[in-house]
Amino acid sequence: MAYFDAASAEPLHPAARAAFLSALEEGWADPARQYHDGRRARLLLDAARETVATVLGARPDEVAFTGSGTQAVQLALLGTLAGRRRVGAHAVVSAVEHSSVLHAAEQHEARGGEITRTVVDRTGRVDLAALENDLRADTAAVALQSANHEVGTLQPVAEAADLCAARGIPLIVDAAQSVGRVAVPDGWSVLAASAHKWGGPAGVGVLVVKKGTRYASPLPYDEREARRVPGFVNVPAIVAAAVALGAVATGGDDENRRLAGLVDKIRTRVPQTVPDVEVVGDPVARLPHLVTFSCLYVDGEALLTALDRAGFAVSSGSSCTSSTLTPSHVLAAMGVLSQGNVRVSLPHGTPAAEVDRFLAVLPGIVADLRAVTGVTPGVLPSAAGTAADSAIADSAIADSPMPESAEPGTGEQGSGEPGSPALVLDTLGRRCPIPVIELAKHIGEVPPGALVAVLSDDEAARLDVPAWCEMTGHAYAGERPSPEGGVAYLVRRTS
Amino acid sequence: MAYFDAASAEPLHPAARAAFLSALEEGWADPARQYHDGRRARLLLDAARETVATVLGARPDEVAFTGSGTQAVQLALLGTLAGRRRVGAHAVVSAVEHSSVLHAAEQHEARGGEITRTVVDRTGRVDLAALENDLRADTAAVALQSANHEVGTLQPVAEAADLCAARGIPLIVDAAQSVGRVAVPDGWSVLAASAHKWGGPAGVGVLVVKKGTRYASPLPYDEREARRVPGFVNVPAIVAAAVALGAVATGGDDENRRLAGLVDKIRTRVPQTVPDVEVVGDPVARLPHLVTFSCLYVDGEALLTALDRAGFAVSSGSSCTSSTLTPSHVLAAMGVLSQGNVRVSLPHGTPAAEVDRFLAVLPGIVADLRAVTGVTPGVLPSAAGTAADSAIADSAIADSPMPESAEPGTGEQGSGEPGSPALVLDTLGRRCPIPVIELAKHIGEVPPGALVAVLSDDEAARLDVPAWCEMTGHAYAGERPSPEGGVAYLVRRTS
Repeated sequence: MAYFDAASAEPLHPAARAAFLSALEEGWADPARQYHDGRRARLLLDAARETVATVLGARPDEVAFTGSGTQAVQLALLGTLAGRRRVGAHAVVSAVEHSSVLHAAEQHEARGGEITRTVVDRTGRVDLAALENDLRADTAAVALQSANHEVGTLQPVAEAADLCAARGIPLIVDAAQSVGRVAVPDGWSVLAASAHKWGGPAGVGVLVVKKGTRYASPLPYDEREARRVPGFVNVPAIVAAAVALGAVATGGDDENRRLAGLVDKIRTRVPQTVPDVEVVGDPVARLPHLVTFSCLYVDGEALLTALDRAGFAVSSGSSCTSSTLTPSHVLAAMGVLSQGNVRVSLPHGTPAAEVDRFLAVLPGIVADLRAVTGVTPGVLPSAAGTAADSAIADSAIADSPMPESAEPGTGEQGSGEPGSPALVLDTLGRRCPIPVIELAKHIGEVPPGALVAVLSDDEAARLDVPAWCEMTGHAYAGERPSPEGGVAYLVRRTS
Repeated sequence: MAYFDAASAEPLHPAARAAFLSALEEGWADPARQYHDGRRARLLLDAARETVATVLGARPDEVAFTGSGTQAVQLALLGTLAGRRRVGAHAVVSAVEHSSVLHAAEQHEARGGEITRTVVDRTGRVDLAALENDLRADTAAVALQSANHEVGTLQPVAEAADLCAARGIPLIVDAAQSVGRVAVPDGWSVLAASAHKWGGPAGVGVLVVKKGTRYASPLPYDEREARRVPGFVNVPAIVAAAVALGAVATGGDDENRRLAGLVDKIRTRVPQTVPDVEVVGDPVARLPHLVTFSCLYVDGEALLTALDRAGFAVSSGSSCTSSTLTPSHVLAAMGVLSQGNVRVSLPHGTPAAEVDRFLAVLPGIVADLRAVTGVTPGVLPSAAGTAADSAIADSAIADSPMPESAEPGTGEQGSGEPGSPALVLDTLGRRCPIPVIELAKHIGEVPPGALVAVLSDDEAARLDVPAWCEMTGHAYAGERPSPEGGVAYLVRRTS
């Protein structure tokens, strides 16, 4: 099994495993106790804190260990906002923060606070001019990830820190994806990270609050961990986390360069061997180990299942692989294709041969999935590609009955801009990638210059129909409410 | 080293260690992922949840795993209160709950809620009549531990549950100390526990919310763990926790009976071999493995240090062993002696020989510590026991200069009840056990029936002076503010 989902969880580093076993023997007691076993646990904890502080460029007394990276980053945001509530209740977060940050921001809103989600460009990078515009007199904090967890794009942390510093606003950096991979630029006030992303065990997050930053714990009082994290301190896991961080930080540059080369290979080869693929994220200013691409006309879940059968563990931001039926908020904020989405994130030590094998099997897997759709990628389908192909597509992909086939010239006759569609494709009740597949199959049935309306109640269509237009050269003509329900996405055939 | 502090942390159960190692290999991936490694982690997680639910008498879908027992119990209280905020913002908690519960209750108060701390008797057991009186129309929840963590007394959970059920109030049970030791009585709505107390690893708490109980998460949204606990699920530690629980629950009765016998031996032998000792907590309705006693005229920290040197790890509720300078709130609520306090809590598998060795060395250790105080335990000191002994006491115990010696008949001349002291002992600025030692040393200087005033600004004196009276047969005559600062505790010599 080739495990390519390090961004979810990096397998435990061998050095961390050894340290964990040893610390389970020597560090299990309460480090607050004065007896022998407690003092020994305290020494291990102090040493681990020193290691983590050094790697993160902080003082040991600025570092608190939490029960998870999620807890760390949620405390970072909510604790900093609570500490600065006299300044105001407004916070700015990037639109592509990890969902744990966005969920904490939503809680802040639900309790009367105000959140601005600052926009990103098509690579996923925060727009600094927009960010500057979002800052206000009552902005209590700004949260910006060091690098995006889905597409790998590095954020302009140093520049954002300068903008914040000029206004006395603390910058909170979610460094979960970059710690152990890329150094975090200076200038942050609060930093959060997660040990199991760098090869430590689960159950350890890190919350660093720089001296001079106001912080008020949202949690009940507890004297442990700088009064920021109530509960028994999990010394064995913290020791293992620190050992893993030390191991990947020391001499990790070579390994990260090697992984960056493997990712470059994926970024180059996939578009060469798989038609109609969009590789997203910044190609240069990026995490070394992570790459994301999306494949037109492919069901993300089917793709993940086929890759799993072929021995590859990857993740996806496609809506059909999540329980929410919405595509990844990151891809949505970037305005890129979400269907057939694959995120590859390479653990430390990934053999080059595994990447080669992935590149060898991927084209065939994607082609097999597309074969049943009735769409020939890269080729505008002729008007002939209809009934027979549709039947195949339905039996292979659809999990709900095919709606009544729309005929050219029927459907909505609204006369407003951009005009009336020559063809209405009713895909209501059908999920990604069906709306785009139907569009690709039937657009050849209208003359160049004519409009096609795709009726859809699938959130992914809002992202995928425009992305399909961008990739195929057709013109996206906007959306409008549909009397039949859902939304009509309008596409003008250009060739 | 004999480790007698299982109530802080039970050493990892051998079966749990083996399961942990195996689950670090097989359960490290994200159980929400659909690929092979994720599915395997999910199967392990599901099995662990089933085990824990079975032992706790719950359904698997009622069980959520948290990052610590503290997190579990704090969520239990705050989430239940949030879920029932339409009923009211009043909660009742016992005065002897774990500090994590009391700190959560304080946060509820700080945010506008109201808390009643229901009283306990001298054994630490909640007074059911008082509890019933505390329940109001706007009482949203009641929190009661299954057993006290410092003195071992079992609480009347079933009876409290009946009182609550009759009024439709959910009962929250902190079962951290009893799970794996004593079955939790039925009737609770929400239960919290902590794996490292039963031989699991640190980093795993359990939050059980029975179906039909209103619960609103105080934490940001997350779809994992029944939407109650945000963050990556720590499968390996949860697996180890479940294996440990299964191991101690299966056939644990014999072991718990054996430990109960060892505790009985301590409860019987310590008062026989150590003079002026108070063994606290219910002698029968108690946890099998835990016993607490307090030794007059002994500095708790010095006692713990001496026991540690002799190879015994125990804890203490004495104020001099904590950073807060206040004695344990549990001992305070019970109104029992706090000085020289020792809690012995035996891990599963404690050899009887270790307990015997403890019983053999304890009398000598206590006697050595008392030898330098100038007080002969069990014997009312004569008026002669003054200057020379005091000098020894000062050099050995005092960490601040001896205040000017008070002479018989000097000092405060107030004429209110209970009359004027014949002797004022100024112990301002001096910590436990000095005020009681001074009292014991000098009470012989006044005639029977005369009053002695002990001036103290040490919180422990409020507990220890009355407890000393109870143990020695002198009459405690109350306290009054002292013009010199602190409080004057009045004692009438009776013999």
